[in-house]
Amino acid sequence: MADKQFDVLVIGGGPGGYVAAIRAAQLGFKTACAESHPYADPKGEPRLGGTCLNVGCIPSKALLHTSHLFEEAEHAFEGQGIKVSGGVSIDVPTMIGRKNKVVDQLTQGIKGLFKKNKVTFLAGHGSFESAGAGGYVVKVGNETVEAKHVIIATGSKPRHLPGIPVDNKIVCDNVGALDFDAVPKKLGVIGAGVIGLEMGSVWRRLGAEVTVLEALPDFMGFADVDVAKEALKVFAKQGLKIQTGVTIGDTKVTKKGVSIAYTDKDGKEAKLDCDRLIVSVGRVPNTDGLNAAAVGLNVNERGQIVVDGHCKSNLPNVYAVGDVVRGPMLAHKAMEEAVMVAEIIAGQAGHCNLDMVPGVIYTSPEIAWVGKTERQLKAEGVAYRAGKIPFMANGRALGSGDPTGFVKMLACASTDRILGVHIIGANASELISEAVVAMEFGAASEDLARICHAHPTLSEVVHEAALAVDKRPLHF
Amino acid sequence: MADKQFDVLVIGGGPGGYVAAIRAAQLGFKTACAESHPYADPKGEPRLGGTCLNVGCIPSKALLHTSHLFEEAEHAFEGQGIKVSGGVSIDVPTMIGRKNKVVDQLTQGIKGLFKKNKVTFLAGHGSFESAGAGGYVVKVGNETVEAKHVIIATGSKPRHLPGIPVDNKIVCDNVGALDFDAVPKKLGVIGAGVIGLEMGSVWRRLGAEVTVLEALPDFMGFADVDVAKEALKVFAKQGLKIQTGVTIGDTKVTKKGVSIAYTDKDGKEAKLDCDRLIVSVGRVPNTDGLNAAAVGLNVNERGQIVVDGHCKSNLPNVYAVGDVVRGPMLAHKAMEEAVMVAEIIAGQAGHCNLDMVPGVIYTSPEIAWVGKTERQLKAEGVAYRAGKIPFMANGRALGSGDPTGFVKMLACASTDRILGVHIIGANASELISEAVVAMEFGAASEDLARICHAHPTLSEVVHEAALAVDKRPLHF
Repeated sequence: MADKQFDVLVIGGGPGGYVAAIRAAQLGFKTACAESHPYADPKGEPRLGGTCLNVGCIPSKALLHTSHLFEEAEHAFEGQGIKVSGGVSIDVPTMIGRKNKVVDQLTQGIKGLFKKNKVTFLAGHGSFESAGAGGYVVKVGNETVEAKHVIIATGSKPRHLPGIPVDNKIVCDNVGALDFDAVPKKLGVIGAGVIGLEMGSVWRRLGAEVTVLEALPDFMGFADVDVAKEALKVFAKQGLKIQTGVTIGDTKVTKKGVSIAYTDKDGKEAKLDCDRLIVSVGRVPNTDGLNAAAVGLNVNERGQIVVDGHCKSNLPNVYAVGDVVRGPMLAHKAMEEAVMVAEIIAGQAGHCNLDMVPGVIYTSPEIAWVGKTERQLKAEGVAYRAGKIPFMANGRALGSGDPTGFVKMLACASTDRILGVHIIGANASELISEAVVAMEFGAASEDLARICHAHPTLSEVVHEAALAVDKRPLHF
Repeated sequence: MADKQFDVLVIGGGPGGYVAAIRAAQLGFKTACAESHPYADPKGEPRLGGTCLNVGCIPSKALLHTSHLFEEAEHAFEGQGIKVSGGVSIDVPTMIGRKNKVVDQLTQGIKGLFKKNKVTFLAGHGSFESAGAGGYVVKVGNETVEAKHVIIATGSKPRHLPGIPVDNKIVCDNVGALDFDAVPKKLGVIGAGVIGLEMGSVWRRLGAEVTVLEALPDFMGFADVDVAKEALKVFAKQGLKIQTGVTIGDTKVTKKGVSIAYTDKDGKEAKLDCDRLIVSVGRVPNTDGLNAAAVGLNVNERGQIVVDGHCKSNLPNVYAVGDVVRGPMLAHKAMEEAVMVAEIIAGQAGHCNLDMVPGVIYTSPEIAWVGKTERQLKAEGVAYRAGKIPFMANGRALGSGDPTGFVKMLACASTDRILGVHIIGANASELISEAVVAMEFGAASEDLARICHAHPTLSEVVHEAALAVDKRPLHF
C-alpha cells in the first residue's frame, strides 16, 4: 500500500506540470504535483515553476528589460533631449537581484495557486515503481504515491557539448548565463538559437563584445527567410558578431576564460578567446530519472516520451506534456497540452492545435511568428499571396523611435485564408496574439483588412500587411 | 466650367480625408484631396495629415514616449541597477525638435503616398459653390473644381471656453500643449478627457505640478467603472491632482500665468494659479467654412454633417467621414469610414462597424477598450459574466517592472459571446487588437480561453481574463 493516494499525480512542477495540476484539481480530482529541483532556493527546498520560471523565460525577460533600458539610456536618450550628465553604468548585482526577486515572487505565486486550487505539492523526485489495479505506484522522494492517472511533465535540460564541461561560472548554459557577477569583456556564445540570441543580446547591450558561433549554415533557419535576413542585419549593426557554418574544435578552459578553436564556414581555422562562454545548443528531455522501464513506458531514442496527438503515452492513464514530448519546447505549448490532458482525464473533449502555437524571440527587435513560412508553403506546393509592411511606415513606431522590422502575412492564393504571420519589430511578442486569434478563426487576410485597428498603434502594421496581401495598403 | 474636374473630390487631408482619397484612387477614380491648413510648415504651405498627425495623436505619442523614458530613468533605473550618477534632466527644445521631425517625416510620407496612388493634392480651402448636372462645384483656394462625388473630411477643432482666450502660449489647446518651450512649474488642465490626461501626464513626468479640473462629477465616465477607478488611483499616486465636479469661474490671464477661480464639487470656492493652462474640453466639427447652404447640405445644431450609417449625407454623391460626423472623434474611426465611402462610390459593399471601434488613452498605464461597459450592459438589461485579471499575476509585467492594472472581459451570460473588453495597463493599446478581432468574429470567451497565447507576454492576461469569465483562471 502506497503512502499517499491521488486521482492525478503530476510529475514535474514547470509550466506544463503546475498548469496540469491546477486544471485537474479544478475539475474535481484529488491532485498532487511532485517537484524536486531547488534551483536557487536559499534553503535548498524544491521550487515550482520549472526551467521557464526559474532559469528561463522569466529571468531572461527581466534581464532583457533592464538591458534594453540601459541601451536606450546610452543611445536613445540624447536625441530625445534626455540628458544624463554623468553617464550611465550598470550595477550587475543589483540587476541580478531584481531578477531574482521577480522569480521569487512568481514561484511563491504558484504555491499560492496550488493552495487556492487544492493541489498537494510533493517535494521530491518522481520515478515509477510499478503499475497495478489501483493505478501507478510512483516513488516521490522517500514516499510512495499511488495515482490512477499520471501526467509526466519533467521538462528538459540544456544539451552540453563533449569536451566543453559546463561549470556555470566560466562555461555556462542558460542557468549560469542569467547569473554573471559582472559584464564579461568578451563573451562567446555557441548556438544562435533563442537562448543564445537573447542572452547574447543582454550582455552585449551592457557592454560585452559578443561572438556567436553557429554550426548550421543558415542563420535562424527555423524562421521566415526575410525575418532571418533582417534579424541578421540588425543584430550585426548592433554589434553581435554572428558566424554560421562553423565547426567547433578543441576548447581550453582556464580560470580566466575560454579559448575555442573552430573552423569557419570556408574551412579556415580560427580561434575565439573569451572571458565567459554560453553553450546554447538545444535541450534534451528529462526522462532518465523516471524509471520508465519499471512500467514499460515508451521512450524514444531522443529521450522523448512517445505520445499521440492528445499526449497519451503507450500506457493507459499515463500522459506526458511539454518539453518531454515532441513539438516545440515552449512554455505556452506545454500549458496548452496540460489543460488538454486534464480535461481529457475528466472526460471532456481536450484539444491542442500545435499548428497555432506562436514562437517568440525576445531580442530587440522582437521576433514572433505563427503558422507557415514561405519556405514551408513552397515545399508543400501551396500557392500563396504575401503582404509585407515595414514599421517605418507606422506613426507609433516612429514616435517611439524604433521603426525597425516589418510584418509579413501569407495567405492562400485561392481561399485567402491566412497561413502564416511573421513579425520582426518592437512588441512583436504582443502583436502576434491577434494573428493567432484570427488564424484560429480561419480568418482570411480580407477579414483582418476590414477590422478596425486603433491609431496610432503598432498593430496597424498587421492591418496594413493584411491590406498588402491584396495589394491595397493605405500607408505604404 | 470649373478649372479642374475629378471623379472624387475629398475636402480635408486628415486621416479620414487622405485615406478616402488614396482608396478612391486605388479603385480607379480620378481623385483630388484639398487641404489648406499649414500647421507648423516653415513655408506656410498646406500640410497633409490633419490634426491627428500634425497636432494630435502622433506628436503627443512622441512626447509621451520621451517623457515615459525620462520617468523610467528617474524612478525605475536605480532598482534595476542602472546608475545615472549625474542625474537626469530634460532639454525641452530637443524633445520638441525630435517630435517635429517625426511629424515632418509622416506628413511628407502622405505626400509620397498621394504620388504613388495618383491622388492630386489641392492646396486650398474647399467650400461649396453649386450643384449641377456634372456634379458639385467646389471652390478650392482660387480655383474651382467640379467633382461627381464629394467626400467631406474637414475634421474638428478644439472647443474653447468663453472668457478664457487661447493664445497657445500661456493658455493652450492641443496645439500649444505640444509646444511648450520649457517645463511649466505649475500646469493647469481644464478637462479630464483623453487630451487633458495625456498632455497632463507628459508635463507631470517632466516635473510640472499638474492640476486637472473636470466639470463632470464622474472621472472618465465614458470608461468602464473599474477602469476609471483604477486610473484615478494610479494617476493620483503619480501626482496628478484631479478634481471632478468643478465649476470654472473667472479666469485671469497675465503674461506670467493664469489664475482660475472655481467652485469645487462641494460648492467651496477655490483658486488655481498656474504658469500654463491647457484647455481640453472637447472638439467641434469644422463645417462653418464649407458653405453648406450653397448646396443645401444638412448640418445639425452641433455643427455635424448629418449622415446615415454609410456616411451618406442628404445630398446625392456627397459623403462625410470622421470628426465632422457623429460617432467617436478617433482617427481610426475616420479611416474606416473613409475606406467604406470610397468603396461604396465604387459600387462595392462598404461597411463600418462603429460598435467595434476601440478607444485608447495613452497615459501610463495605457487604457484601451472595445464594446460595452458593465454600465451599458446593465442599462440594456443584458445578463453577463465578467472575468477580471490583474497584471500583477503576469510574469512579463513583473519582469518589466510595471504590473499596474488589469484586463476585464464581459461576456453574454447565455451565449458567452464577448461583449466588451476593458484594459488598463502597459501596452493596452496593442493588447486591445486581439479583443477587437475576436469580437468581430463573434467569439465566445471560451474561444479566447482555448487559443494559445505566447509566454511570457502581457496578452496572457487577456487569455486569463477569458478563463476567469468561466471562473477557471490558471494563474490567478
